[in-house]
Amino acid sequence: MTAPVLPTIADVRAAVRRLNGIAVRTPLLPAPVLQRLLGRPVFVKAETLQLTGSFKFRGAWNRIAAMTAAERAPGVVAFSSGNHAQGVAAAAHLHGVAAAIVMPSDAPRVKVDGTRAWGGEVHFYDRARESREAMAAHLAAERGAIVIPAFDDPHVIAGQGTAGLEIAVAVAARGLTLGAVVTPVGGGGLASGLALALEAAAPDARLYGAEPEGFDDLRRSLAAGRIVANEARSGSIQDALLSPSVCRRTFAILRPRMAACVAVSDDEARSAMAWAALHLKLVTEPGGAAALAAVLSGHIPAGEDALVIVLSGGNTDAVTTTS
Amino acid sequence: MTAPVLPTIADVRAAVRRLNGIAVRTPLLPAPVLQRLLGRPVFVKAETLQLTGSFKFRGAWNRIAAMTAAERAPGVVAFSSGNHAQGVAAAAHLHGVAAAIVMPSDAPRVKVDGTRAWGGEVHFYDRARESREAMAAHLAAERGAIVIPAFDDPHVIAGQGTAGLEIAVAVAARGLTLGAVVTPVGGGGLASGLALALEAAAPDARLYGAEPEGFDDLRRSLAAGRIVANEARSGSIQDALLSPSVCRRTFAILRPRMAACVAVSDDEARSAMAWAALHLKLVTEPGGAAALAAVLSGHIPAGEDALVIVLSGGNTDAVTTTS
Repeated sequence: MTAPVLPTIADVRAAVRRLNGIAVRTPLLPAPVLQRLLGRPVFVKAETLQLTGSFKFRGAWNRIAAMTAAERAPGVVAFSSGNHAQGVAAAAHLHGVAAAIVMPSDAPRVKVDGTRAWGGEVHFYDRARESREAMAAHLAAERGAIVIPAFDDPHVIAGQGTAGLEIAVAVAARGLTLGAVVTPVGGGGLASGLALALEAAAPDARLYGAEPEGFDDLRRSLAAGRIVANEARSGSIQDALLSPSVCRRTFAILRPRMAACVAVSDDEARSAMAWAALHLKLVTEPGGAAALAAVLSGHIPAGEDALVIVLSGGNTDAVTTTS
Repeated sequence: MTAPVLPTIADVRAAVRRLNGIAVRTPLLPAPVLQRLLGRPVFVKAETLQLTGSFKFRGAWNRIAAMTAAERAPGVVAFSSGNHAQGVAAAAHLHGVAAAIVMPSDAPRVKVDGTRAWGGEVHFYDRARESREAMAAHLAAERGAIVIPAFDDPHVIAGQGTAGLEIAVAVAARGLTLGAVVTPVGGGGLASGLALALEAAAPDARLYGAEPEGFDDLRRSLAAGRIVANEARSGSIQDALLSPSVCRRTFAILRPRMAACVAVSDDEARSAMAWAALHLKLVTEPGGAAALAAVLSGHIPAGEDALVIVLSGGNTDAVTTTS
């Protein structure tokens, strides 16, 4: 096995230029209630407000923008439980090309609708009986199209890293020192991008990951010093974070750069969603609120410098207004 | 009756300087679904993400910041159904002074809790039997404190106007022309501030107001050429917008500067709240979603230039997460 090509901070900076004027420079919002509770400046990076309701648009746009016109022409293919699906559909649409997306038949309806709203052509598969990888490969071969991985790709990781540079710039602009960033972790694409960005722009900041209980493969992989996969494939409401494991590429980036990973329960994620709606006026999805859940549950070490919590996605069917 | 002192754009610019580094420069977020529906660039100004969950912090901060230290020392007093209450409580707290707030006994719990969380001392009154003005005047006299009006004050109006300058700057930064701004209207403080800001920074933009059905006093006042009060005092879920009428000051500013006002039903407000949660990932309160409701219901004339919808507040008990 040859070592995978790893993106560098130069790739993240190139992604910043590609995303400029296209992606939302999402706000870094103060969380005064948490600030008083923790005795340090606390902010949330609201990637819920990114186009398509999650950070995934960043990586998808960067990957497609890095293609030649000829590579892009036949359209693109992706497989995803939902947020990457929408990110790829939107990025393809805004590039004027088609997107075929392989999604599980039990994907949240809001994610299927969101993918279709951006013109994505949805192909369902049965999690128990079919291989989404095989189905995507077949669609791609049929069309001569490129498959855009959800996280195992240098351009995708570099695209997600743009959120990390935005965090570093916004914290510095407030005259504060960035002490720690907490992010949800699924396959590790966002975490890897953040790691590269922080290493360059805020080298003293510590990066923490939050994973669903039972899907804490990165936490266990960091402890074991090698990639350990999750046993279960489903069974958590944090659907955006249920990757089988991190990949060699993201593990190679994260292993030397992460301070720690913690597991959060579905109940903690649920409470964090309600907390975000009440105190931040933000809709989050269960997986998107995992880092907030880790902080609210006391899993992240105390500190004095600014703490930034990444809210990675807000695509949920589960928020209702009852006035 | 002497004419009331009206704030000018110079007062709005002074407020920008006072709020700098304190208030949230709230994001102007794209609304791609509406953009495709309406065939024009559409954005929301998310004042829901302001400190205290509504634009009210701007005016309250500006009013208190304009006081002398001696005027501030005894604390401040305000009466409000909830958003101004929280804005004043937070602005007073951040100035290191006390705030006594007179609130109706049926105010939404989230607004009472929010006011107390910022250290506000809440005094309840009974809408049917007591005068909140008299109660506030009594508290103020007792303490030698100044009452901060919810809208009938030049500094409060100028503070709200800072949101208008931010809108104009953010739209221009995208290389777009601002065609129209739609805002919820209660007593007209926010609308007046926006009117002054747009007149100076985007003079071709049209300003529209959205009021609850049965509380469309500004719409009827504009038609009559004089202030006409609402008959009802309660009976709409859009609790933030139930002022008896605009005041002489806000009417003097708005009469020559508003394109039109429209009334939205509670059902339209409810639908807009759900729409904002699903498509924008933002929690809004019924009154805070009134301008969005006006747009979604087709009440705002078509156009080609950018449309900005102000989401003025997000303090609701009515959002639940059910995952």
